[in-house]
Amino acid sequence: GAGADNDLYINQAIVFIEDAIQYRSINHRVDSKSLWLYRWYYSRTCQWILSLTITVILALAFIEEPSSLTVTSDVRYRLPAWNPPCGLTESIELLCFLVFVVDVSVKSYLIGWKEFWKNKWLMAYILTLIVSLTDWIVSLSFFCKESVRIRRILRPFFLLQNSSMMKKTLKSINSTLPEMASVVLLLAVHLSLFTMFAMLLFARTKDNQQDKEWVVYFRNLPDSLTSLLVLLTTANNPDVMIPAYSKNRAYSIFFILFTVLGNLFLMNLLTAIIYNQFRGYLLKSVQSSLFRRRLGIRAAFEVLSSLKETPASAQQSCVSVGALLQVLQKAEMDSRCKQAIMRSLKMCSCDQLSAAQFQKLFEELDKDAIKQHPPSPEYQSHFMQKMQFAFGHPYFGYLGNVVALANIISICVVLVMDADKQPSERDDFFLGAINCFFILYYLLEMLLKILAMGLKRYLSYPSNRFDGLLTVILLILEIATFAVYGFPHPGWRPEFMGLLSLWDMVRLVNMLIVFRFLRIIPNMKFMALVVTTLLDLVKNLRAFAGILVVVFYAFAITGIMLFKGAVVPLGNTRYIGNKPSASVFSLWVNIVLYFKEKNVISWCSAHFQAEVIYCLLYVLSVHLICRWAKIYFVAWWLISSVIWVNLFVALLLENFIHKWDRRCQRESLSDIEYQRTVELMFRDVLEEPTEEELMEKLHQHPHLQLCR
Amino acid sequence: GAGADNDLYINQAIVFIEDAIQYRSINHRVDSKSLWLYRWYYSRTCQWILSLTITVILALAFIEEPSSLTVTSDVRYRLPAWNPPCGLTESIELLCFLVFVVDVSVKSYLIGWKEFWKNKWLMAYILTLIVSLTDWIVSLSFFCKESVRIRRILRPFFLLQNSSMMKKTLKSINSTLPEMASVVLLLAVHLSLFTMFAMLLFARTKDNQQDKEWVVYFRNLPDSLTSLLVLLTTANNPDVMIPAYSKNRAYSIFFILFTVLGNLFLMNLLTAIIYNQFRGYLLKSVQSSLFRRRLGIRAAFEVLSSLKETPASAQQSCVSVGALLQVLQKAEMDSRCKQAIMRSLKMCSCDQLSAAQFQKLFEELDKDAIKQHPPSPEYQSHFMQKMQFAFGHPYFGYLGNVVALANIISICVVLVMDADKQPSERDDFFLGAINCFFILYYLLEMLLKILAMGLKRYLSYPSNRFDGLLTVILLILEIATFAVYGFPHPGWRPEFMGLLSLWDMVRLVNMLIVFRFLRIIPNMKFMALVVTTLLDLVKNLRAFAGILVVVFYAFAITGIMLFKGAVVPLGNTRYIGNKPSASVFSLWVNIVLYFKEKNVISWCSAHFQAEVIYCLLYVLSVHLICRWAKIYFVAWWLISSVIWVNLFVALLLENFIHKWDRRCQRESLSDIEYQRTVELMFRDVLEEPTEEELMEKLHQHPHLQLCR
Repeated sequence: GAGADNDLYINQAIVFIEDAIQYRSINHRVDSKSLWLYRWYYSRTCQWILSLTITVILALAFIEEPSSLTVTSDVRYRLPAWNPPCGLTESIELLCFLVFVVDVSVKSYLIGWKEFWKNKWLMAYILTLIVSLTDWIVSLSFFCKESVRIRRILRPFFLLQNSSMMKKTLKSINSTLPEMASVVLLLAVHLSLFTMFAMLLFARTKDNQQDKEWVVYFRNLPDSLTSLLVLLTTANNPDVMIPAYSKNRAYSIFFILFTVLGNLFLMNLLTAIIYNQFRGYLLKSVQSSLFRRRLGIRAAFEVLSSLKETPASAQQSCVSVGALLQVLQKAEMDSRCKQAIMRSLKMCSCDQLSAAQFQKLFEELDKDAIKQHPPSPEYQSHFMQKMQFAFGHPYFGYLGNVVALANIISICVVLVMDADKQPSERDDFFLGAINCFFILYYLLEMLLKILAMGLKRYLSYPSNRFDGLLTVILLILEIATFAVYGFPHPGWRPEFMGLLSLWDMVRLVNMLIVFRFLRIIPNMKFMALVVTTLLDLVKNLRAFAGILVVVFYAFAITGIMLFKGAVVPLGNTRYIGNKPSASVFSLWVNIVLYFKEKNVISWCSAHFQAEVIYCLLYVLSVHLICRWAKIYFVAWWLISSVIWVNLFVALLLENFIHKWDRRCQRESLSDIEYQRTVELMFRDVLEEPTEEELMEKLHQHPHLQLCR
Repeated sequence: GAGADNDLYINQAIVFIEDAIQYRSINHRVDSKSLWLYRWYYSRTCQWILSLTITVILALAFIEEPSSLTVTSDVRYRLPAWNPPCGLTESIELLCFLVFVVDVSVKSYLIGWKEFWKNKWLMAYILTLIVSLTDWIVSLSFFCKESVRIRRILRPFFLLQNSSMMKKTLKSINSTLPEMASVVLLLAVHLSLFTMFAMLLFARTKDNQQDKEWVVYFRNLPDSLTSLLVLLTTANNPDVMIPAYSKNRAYSIFFILFTVLGNLFLMNLLTAIIYNQFRGYLLKSVQSSLFRRRLGIRAAFEVLSSLKETPASAQQSCVSVGALLQVLQKAEMDSRCKQAIMRSLKMCSCDQLSAAQFQKLFEELDKDAIKQHPPSPEYQSHFMQKMQFAFGHPYFGYLGNVVALANIISICVVLVMDADKQPSERDDFFLGAINCFFILYYLLEMLLKILAMGLKRYLSYPSNRFDGLLTVILLILEIATFAVYGFPHPGWRPEFMGLLSLWDMVRLVNMLIVFRFLRIIPNMKFMALVVTTLLDLVKNLRAFAGILVVVFYAFAITGIMLFKGAVVPLGNTRYIGNKPSASVFSLWVNIVLYFKEKNVISWCSAHFQAEVIYCLLYVLSVHLICRWAKIYFVAWWLISSVIWVNLFVALLLENFIHKWDRRCQRESLSDIEYQRTVELMFRDVLEEPTEEELMEKLHQHPHLQLCR
């Protein structure tokens, strides 16, 4: 009937508007049941459960069998990690898989059969689930004794597919790959030509004294390649050229040429290429988000305009205010926005809304919340007013900064004086006394500020919140110290009591004071600019960080699988199995020397957890592991150090230059807006989608049949 | 008289046009004698003598007393360097100073007294000369035995002041300094806060087993600061955190936070700032060059238009073609440009030129030479025409590349097979035979190409010149080998004969073959783009490289002065003077350990010549030198590694992005133009100066009185 139809239209409008708010695609089923399922799927609870599941399945690696989550990383001292019984992690995994199965079926159902076949991500999702479940069954049938678990490497995929930002970023990275591949190819050509040159230049001679360079770095092709590759990372920078250089200074020309061409030119070329590709990336992504929002709102307008209650007036379609109010009340959105829209709807005082008016109403969504600090209390007494003026004045804040600086300096002086003293000689009286004084000042400063500004206004500033929280913690710590150890006096060296020793308490207090010193940041313009750029960057980098986590996880799991059992504690008696210890020791010495020479240790461990050093130091099957380790670390270096760092630099350049230009336009930075989002940063350059584009897209909707 | 006046005007016009061609300022004296002096001063001979003088005075450091220009850099093996007798280098220096005195007087005279007082560079030049001469006199009066020679550090100034590009670049760097200083300040704050945190975190404990981190890296304030500063350079990256990390994995959070904030954010922020500042740098400098050129031409027009022979026509001033022809004939300029201007002057067929026409004539100067390759010879015989088609075809070039690749691979295979053989076991027959075959092919290829293209056309391509030259050298080497050692046969292991052993000859041939493989570059589009970007960059970087040379020179001289006598050969008996060898050795061990721990060796030597390692290893007065060395190397690291590398990256980004955009516009890259200059790269975005700007500048000329 018409009533049911109307209800459906209202529900569709609600969902479309929610889609617009969340920048979601509107290409999903729009019948009543699907709409209910859709709202349920995107409800906070469901999404939270999904995120929790992903977190749990990723976190499993920390407690699963070859994990090494112990306090110390030193294989010689650490206790064996807790091994969960077979079936525990597996049953948690199964639960997660079930959630994912539900997730993928709901998702597939909602986008519809036709769209499903076009969606490669969903297909990959299903495939991953099938492989994981098969692997899980194999695992259980072996009673958890099997060595290779493919499903572990596949796990980060669940994180990847759940974030549209990450998928978009991945697509963007993917489109940069051809250019990156060209530069990497260029690097490879550079490396191989120079390797051949080096092998010819530093050939073996008849005089054994003369060919140190050959012996150490250029013995054969893999050695030479490794030496030069490591030189490209600058890890063995002077060492590799020293033998040749001491023979003849002219040899340094070879190394300088290699470094200049490889490091200075080709590596930076990679930065240039990635920056060039990513220059428009943020803008493009924000532009497509805007399009999705406008599309959702337009779709809501279209379905509302086909409501039966609307008078079939002229050719212009329009929406009644009542219907919109009904939709607004049911839609889930930020209460501030909702109120603002309602308000302007009432002010409009017309009965029917055209498409343009409808869009205009929802522009409230694009605006950032103008944060209004609550007013200061108004005091009657003249004295209180003067107090308020004095302690509400910025100079009082500056005084606080100066006192904090004085505190830092005093701590520094004490640290320098106590540097070489034995712990037993140390006298904590001086530091205890001055810290006590300073903390009292901080407390006083906080109270006076609250007096001047009122508690609400005080708390509305993030810097005050930071300040106040630290002051309260400091106060609690200080009171606890005095309660346990009494008041400071000369020769104050109490014995260890309670949870922490006095020395630890004092250290903790000092660290907090150093940390509290960061409150000066908003007072320095340049620092404030840098910090806001950093915060922006952190927001924009979430997708990149997610992809990094995915890559890191996959690499870590692969590493654990490759180097499992290679960690042999040396120095105590637990050698593995049937090898005589003498040969193990000689092998170990060999490997240490091998890696020291190549500087692979400092190089790879610089980019990977220190754990790996032990893997490399204590490996048993030298050459197998060495070759694998080399390939593994070269891949890791390329991805983490070369590509990811360059992506980061590109984004930083983009963000910073944009910000800097804006700063020059606006001049005033006194009021730092921490709530700035990417969308707002680009607002002035964004293009509004045209009516035609929107309608064309709407008509392509697979499930929504528009009347006209 | 009028004739003398006319001559003067003609001469002025000649000089102004020469100024325009060379992008020189026109603010110099313009009377007859000064013009003669000016042309003499800027004549090729004079400028060449000046450059030679600068080179000589800079090169003196290599033969002066504390120099170490020997073949080996190892202090233990090297022979004492040649010490020139007192007075030799000093008299050369005096000659150079005299040239500089002449230079500065001519320069000062030419710009005039009034301008002289405004020109800080000239004042600094005179001051430098005075200080240098005083120092020289002091030096001679001590019979070259004095220890400090200030004039050596001042020498690079002569290089600096002679290049207007370098002065401009320095000014540009200077204007970026405030922002850079902010970031460096931020780095300092970051470093000091983290140092305090580290000292509190890794404090000395009662248990000696537990505080390895304190003992090794955070013993006192300078130690902690050094540890973290070196961590900022990533030189001691994993080492510094290993002791703490093996105690508790959570300590790694501190180091990760420090590295991420310092290395990833603040260091890259420096890149962003420098890039942002230098984004417009190239454009601005090219723009001001263009202004100088237009101004020079306009000035020439103005003086020519006040010639007496010009009919005092309407308000429009103009120049007679005859006068211009006279000027052109006498002016020194590129003959191609001169001919082109003459040609268009004849085609113009008017008697009088307006200012606009005059400017237009000289636009020929801005155009790049369109390089036309000479035509191929036309053969009559049908067979020859077919030959010409076959061997002139690009596929023949590709075949050559494939053959070169095959040669490279064969060399590579032989190298891998021979890697572990003793030199006496090595059989050079195989390599000799295949190289002989390949070189014959290269010769054939060259001859066939010459046949197809004709010698002139063949030589007009730079890739062919490269190819041909290497082929001829290879041929000569091969013939020489056969002449000395006979033809290769199995078991071909002749004894050493002549200048080079057979093995050296073969190595040389192989290196040349590897080098010759670079001919593939123009055939690969992306490589060609990269190479042209690099070549452009090298052109644009001359000024930066000059400044780097200046800084490097000053640092090297300071280093030599600071660490003179610190180089004590160890391992043989030449210890210095009155110290017992035991204490020297213990000192040495101490220092080695000290620096190994801090990783200062690999860090500083990575950025400085390897010589310094020996300075550091064999120093005598430990703590004095250590402190000085630290400050010295931190300064060097900041300037060379941080600032200069970032400048380089900024320029590379600028160049590459500009180039890349152009490539996308033009699409075709088949004809790489190696003759592109910076001016041409920016031609489409340059703004022409307006008539008013030019005239205003002309009226401000200190020596030229224009009639109107």
